Amino acid sequence: MPTFNLQPMFSPKSIAIIGASGDERKLSARPLVNLRNQGYKGTVYPVNPKYEDIAGYKCLEDIESLPENIDLAIVSVSAKQALPVLEQLAERLVKSAVVYSSGFSEIGQEGSHLQHDLTDFINRTRIPVCGPNSLGFYNQSEKVIATFAAVDFDIGDPVAFITQSGAFGSFTYAMAKEMGLGYNYFVSTGNEAGVDFFDYVEYFAQNENVKVIGGYIEGARDLEKMTQGISAAEKNNKPIILMKVGSSQRGAEAASSHTSSLAGNQSVYESFFKQKNVVQVYDEEELVDTLALFNKGKISPNRGDVGIVTISGGAGIVMADKCEEYGIQTANLTEETTSKLKEILPPFASVNNPVDLTAQIIQMIDHFEESLNIVLEDENVEALVLYMQLGDAIAPQIIPKLKQINEQTDKTLVICWAQPSQKTKDALLDGGLCWLPTPTRAIKAVKNLIQYNEGRERRGQTKNDLPEQKVSEIAATTTDLKNAKTEYDIKQELAGYGISIPRGALVKNVDDAINCVEDIGYPVVLKVASSDITHKSDNGGVKVNINTKEEVIEAYKSIISNMEKNYPSANIEGILIEEMIKDGIEVFIGCFQDSLFGPCIMFGLGGIYVEVLSDVVIRKAPLSEQDAEDMIRSIKGYKILKGTRGKVPSDISALASDLVKISEFCWQYKDSIIELDINPLVVKSKGEGVVALDAAIVS
Amino acid sequence: MPTFNLQPMFSPKSIAIIGASGDERKLSARPLVNLRNQGYKGTVYPVNPKYEDIAGYKCLEDIESLPENIDLAIVSVSAKQALPVLEQLAERLVKSAVVYSSGFSEIGQEGSHLQHDLTDFINRTRIPVCGPNSLGFYNQSEKVIATFAAVDFDIGDPVAFITQSGAFGSFTYAMAKEMGLGYNYFVSTGNEAGVDFFDYVEYFAQNENVKVIGGYIEGARDLEKMTQGISAAEKNNKPIILMKVGSSQRGAEAASSHTSSLAGNQSVYESFFKQKNVVQVYDEEELVDTLALFNKGKISPNRGDVGIVTISGGAGIVMADKCEEYGIQTANLTEETTSKLKEILPPFASVNNPVDLTAQIIQMIDHFEESLNIVLEDENVEALVLYMQLGDAIAPQIIPKLKQINEQTDKTLVICWAQPSQKTKDALLDGGLCWLPTPTRAIKAVKNLIQYNEGRERRGQTKNDLPEQKVSEIAATTTDLKNAKTEYDIKQELAGYGISIPRGALVKNVDDAINCVEDIGYPVVLKVASSDITHKSDNGGVKVNINTKEEVIEAYKSIISNMEKNYPSANIEGILIEEMIKDGIEVFIGCFQDSLFGPCIMFGLGGIYVEVLSDVVIRKAPLSEQDAEDMIRSIKGYKILKGTRGKVPSDISALASDLVKISEFCWQYKDSIIELDINPLVVKSKGEGVVALDAAIVS
Repeated sequence: MPTFNLQPMFSPKSIAIIGASGDERKLSARPLVNLRNQGYKGTVYPVNPKYEDIAGYKCLEDIESLPENIDLAIVSVSAKQALPVLEQLAERLVKSAVVYSSGFSEIGQEGSHLQHDLTDFINRTRIPVCGPNSLGFYNQSEKVIATFAAVDFDIGDPVAFITQSGAFGSFTYAMAKEMGLGYNYFVSTGNEAGVDFFDYVEYFAQNENVKVIGGYIEGARDLEKMTQGISAAEKNNKPIILMKVGSSQRGAEAASSHTSSLAGNQSVYESFFKQKNVVQVYDEEELVDTLALFNKGKISPNRGDVGIVTISGGAGIVMADKCEEYGIQTANLTEETTSKLKEILPPFASVNNPVDLTAQIIQMIDHFEESLNIVLEDENVEALVLYMQLGDAIAPQIIPKLKQINEQTDKTLVICWAQPSQKTKDALLDGGLCWLPTPTRAIKAVKNLIQYNEGRERRGQTKNDLPEQKVSEIAATTTDLKNAKTEYDIKQELAGYGISIPRGALVKNVDDAINCVEDIGYPVVLKVASSDITHKSDNGGVKVNINTKEEVIEAYKSIISNMEKNYPSANIEGILIEEMIKDGIEVFIGCFQDSLFGPCIMFGLGGIYVEVLSDVVIRKAPLSEQDAEDMIRSIKGYKILKGTRGKVPSDISALASDLVKISEFCWQYKDSIIELDINPLVVKSKGEGVVALDAAIVS
Repeated sequence: MPTFNLQPMFSPKSIAIIGASGDERKLSARPLVNLRNQGYKGTVYPVNPKYEDIAGYKCLEDIESLPENIDLAIVSVSAKQALPVLEQLAERLVKSAVVYSSGFSEIGQEGSHLQHDLTDFINRTRIPVCGPNSLGFYNQSEKVIATFAAVDFDIGDPVAFITQSGAFGSFTYAMAKEMGLGYNYFVSTGNEAGVDFFDYVEYFAQNENVKVIGGYIEGARDLEKMTQGISAAEKNNKPIILMKVGSSQRGAEAASSHTSSLAGNQSVYESFFKQKNVVQVYDEEELVDTLALFNKGKISPNRGDVGIVTISGGAGIVMADKCEEYGIQTANLTEETTSKLKEILPPFASVNNPVDLTAQIIQMIDHFEESLNIVLEDENVEALVLYMQLGDAIAPQIIPKLKQINEQTDKTLVICWAQPSQKTKDALLDGGLCWLPTPTRAIKAVKNLIQYNEGRERRGQTKNDLPEQKVSEIAATTTDLKNAKTEYDIKQELAGYGISIPRGALVKNVDDAINCVEDIGYPVVLKVASSDITHKSDNGGVKVNINTKEEVIEAYKSIISNMEKNYPSANIEGILIEEMIKDGIEVFIGCFQDSLFGPCIMFGLGGIYVEVLSDVVIRKAPLSEQDAEDMIRSIKGYKILKGTRGKVPSDISALASDLVKISEFCWQYKDSIIELDINPLVVKSKGEGVVALDAAIVS
């Protein structure tokens, strides 16, 4: 699907306002008042037959009177009127529109019809319409205010914020302001009848006035658009920071009634975002803090850990604890650093990370400055968090020094100044410094920056191995898997993909069984082959550890008689005889269809790991080698595979390679496989490979 | 140890200031200025030969000139002068003192001597001294300001705050103010030379002006004081809310250099606090939010879950997600509630929890009010969080309604009003409402309240089973365990405590072995008995699954010969023959000595659970039945014991009972056991008991 041209929407030279009110107390008067007050430079055409002019703009009587090719139409009419108005606008060749009206899919049946028609209109005309049921949007730098929300333009940062909840987005807008961060672009996507959350992501990824993209999202609607938007941002080195909600059952239900988006499988989202280096945040403070930090933070040439410098021992302890909790490292300072610090700091200061300068450092501002530079210059430090807790009196001496240090370093400097007065906060922010309000919040945001920088480097190294490229290489298959019903058939299909299965054969009588075992070699396993029987091992359909010809005969007969008893009407296709694999670690690999992500691969260790501990990882197919390795490393049971306490490590690279193959198999047959379950797959010792012992498909 | 009388310290009728400065720019002038400015009602005696009077108070020339029995002396002199000054004050029968000076144990060797002497002084005279290296304290209601920190008394809530970091404590003081919460008491404990963190807890527990006790703690110094302080608070129904830091390696190291307190084993602290229903919080915002909520929250007669009402779908989704994340429930509203809501709310509102009234409710304030009452009246709701996001215009209509609802309900009502103006915030707080700033923070604090209320109920029910009472019942033993070296001896000791061990005997020759097996019955296990051999099974010292007389003879000889080969100099005391226990789930129970908590019991499932997953729980001994059950339930492997997928449940009550017995054993022998390791202990099916298969002691 071609992308929308959102340039006329966000950077319009002309704006028509349909349903503009002359009554300033009304919400529908807001956009016009806003445009006038903020000094929008383009042409504005209010359309309302009742007025001669509104807010100093000449009024037009109807849409027909509008000039052609207007860039943006603000549609402030009822839900039922919206589509007729848009049709008229389309005749005037309008280039984009925003519909505020509620009364679409969020109200149920009746509204869904209206929304459906609106979607048709957008698809047919390719006119991008923001909304409906949207708070609208703004572009601060060009004073384009297409929202009826109250806006107050003072700080403009190169940050674009996209939200599926207008109210929640506005809340973060106000929170961000308190952090000294002003979104240059803000858009409330509403019900997304045609223009999708990730259409906006893609637009901002290509907008040179945007450096960081933030958002609140309940659910994505289109995997292709999501992938495309994220890729565009990555290509242009723009971090995306998303708060994805709806992880709980209740939350997901509420999301589906809120903007009728599907919250989806949280863990697939998580692994998808992680894989694409999208920064996922988990609460509203982490969201604005991370945006504020990414707006000012740096990507230093070398990766490293966190340096902590405080004037309070307590804050240092808290920050060290939080580093560990959030999975980043408190930097090991080099001996050079600590001995330099020792030279200039008083004896009761702590020169190890967290460095405690103590409050007395304030009487030695030069040493304070030098200490910060020493820590910043440490090769193990990627970002430095400074905790300060001082009154206004000392701030004017300190802040210019901090500003200077920040300008001179290529590393990220975060100032956690506790409860600053407005004056001090303004001085910090005007100085271009990144201020974060508490030690815990500072470390949480820094964690996101460090992990993002790390991910960026990792992605840079493995770019040739991205699954997106593989997707196009895997030809769509014409065969479906309808005929692969029994374990034997499925294994044959898997084997065709290079996945190891046990040596074996399907036999139809005892003599063939005996002959076949001579080829395979003892011990063997006998299993009934029937697409009618699902739980074969529970009802006498499987015999393991068969070591002699006599045992083969007995096992064969016993399976047949058990099946005749337990499944009298089942169609038995034969007995599958396979070599018995004794040693190795059992894992399972599954595949299921997610409504958004398509085929997803689940992986974990068997037995209690999955049943008791839910120690499972999920990623969308197809997988790259890197994805497969990440999946294997991310489960708790990884230690088992790696070999604990002197035990031999398992063949992890063979496992990774089979995960990739299985994911490609599932991708290729995505239209015919509902579920695939390979359980167990045995991972042998390093160098000895893996074997899929059992496989079942729901198709 | 008798407790200190802290009444003269916090509620002094007279205050002497030693080293009072007349120069208002100096820090040492602050207390005096503060006392005057705030209007302290008692008598103040500045002591300084250089002045006639300071700040309107008549100056005394020296300590000798002070009247006797002054309640509080503020000692503002150097570290070296502090003790001589205190000795002089003791002669004047001063009742308490505070020492600000740094230069004690926090600076190392030299300071440690000074602090040691100070501790001696305090123990000898029983004069409570706050500090040294302390920011001091205040009592807002009586205008007692014994701190040189800047204080600004406006809001006074019945909250006492105790902190081991003056700076961090002051930071939370300022944060709390922003939340509309003013600590009535604040104390910076400094190095705690004599008066300990929990001495203050105990004092505030008995102070009728205090309702909630909060604190920042790096480490406790005395288990008895801690237990006593917490018990006093519980007896008086006062919640304790603590932020315990130093959970990370780096953090713990920093804590030990900061106030020379030991951060200790975090998981023992956690289980101890949980057991005692102390609310442990993990960051500075959670700390002040929880204090603010506990100050205003209610303990309703019935336990229940969280009702969520919003005017923004997004905020509702976030709160539902956070309930799940924090382990509390979003209440299931009764059918009565939802149908009542349906009657009065517009059709696009959501009447399920989270209830979304939508922003349009503001045009129907009566329905808004009614909706809140309907949800509050639901029997499944214990606390209600209301999310609001409105400008100032509507606030004066809404807030009086909220106030009225809050006064009429016996349930907790939390108002999460997003980014209120100062005016709106003041109106909310003046109305006695509990305001919390963000959806995530509101739910986190509510979680603490709900869990505290739950814990209170639980503690009320199990009060007769508290381990404190057991401790006194367990007589101190006179025997030590020096003679119990071999597995056999240790098992005999355990058996004496009622702990089940396998049937068996120690034999010294093959004939005795054969006879003994006839009593026990096959199959049996043979193990070498020697205190010189630790890893018996690794070197041929153990033979299992012995089924015949011949196998007994062979096993016996083989063990002896293996030992002669592998441990030529070991003293072999014989062979331990035991019945072989085949079925059951293997767990381990260990005991170790913690420097603060004394003997602690570790418990977990064997094998990978402990080695790979670190699925282990630790509590201090002795344990109550309730503790033991809580421990068992808290590990991830509990599902295994409970019986997954139709498997028979294990004998959990026998396991709990043995955990209690083992903890009592460790408690009784705490002076002679360094470590005890029972691994494995086999838990058989329900009703069939448990058996300790192996046991080792480090003594």
